[in-house]
Amino acid sequence: MSDREAILFANDTFYAAFAGGSIEQMRAVWADDRDITCIHPGWPPLAGQQEVMDSWTSILSSGETAEIRCVGARAYSQGDTAYVIGFERMPGTLLTTTNVFVRKGAVWRMVHHQAAPCQDQAAADQEDTDPTLQ
Amino acid sequence: MSDREAILFANDTFYAAFAGGSIEQMRAVWADDRDITCIHPGWPPLAGQQEVMDSWTSILSSGETAEIRCVGARAYSQGDTAYVIGFERMPGTLLTTTNVFVRKGAVWRMVHHQAAPCQDQAAADQEDTDPTLQ
Repeated sequence: MSDREAILFANDTFYAAFAGGSIEQMRAVWADDRDITCIHPGWPPLAGQQEVMDSWTSILSSGETAEIRCVGARAYSQGDTAYVIGFERMPGTLLTTTNVFVRKGAVWRMVHHQAAPCQDQAAADQEDTDPTLQ
Repeated sequence: MSDREAILFANDTFYAAFAGGSIEQMRAVWADDRDITCIHPGWPPLAGQQEVMDSWTSILSSGETAEIRCVGARAYSQGDTAYVIGFERMPGTLLTTTNVFVRKGAVWRMVHHQAAPCQDQAAADQEDTDPTLQ
């Protein structure tokens, strides 16, 4: 598996945990040996394991993220750090995102996530292999 | 200068270029030897030197960013890659941001920027040494 494939696999794992609604799965996606940070749409920046994981517990327990999909993901890396940008689609919601990962052994773990509203539906449709699903 | 100081200095340089309105200064902040990416508030992700710099030319020429300030910046790094999160304040506008940098020699150059609306004015005030300026 190339670096790019491994980074996009880690990104897919994040969205699987997001859709699955399991805080245990979500926790396993993130690095557990360093500061982590997160900026949810409209929220202030969160920092530290406790604050970030508490936010995910709250968001996942809402049950509103089951249909989230990442679209048009592009990975960029240097050494043991990478970031992925793309769209997040849920019914009625279009977001853009920055996901930052660090490599630990053979696995890329998330250290930062920002998601924010996007107004350009047409751009997301263009990247989406099946926009009719939304 | 420590890594952290150098990263925050690069972040300050970005906001100086942003406030100064000079595309030449802005161009100098960004890495010129690799793919760069950018997600402006509400926009789809942009990728590549041409697309990203064209967006800055458009934004800076509006003259509406002269009073932009970065507040509560926090830097995180691993090796030659770093990211900074924080708030961006302009009169009537509060944003959160993720800025990604890579080290080239002694200088950190921007490779990615995402900014997005934030609804939590109180959190920004708490980080701001002089919120009355806004």
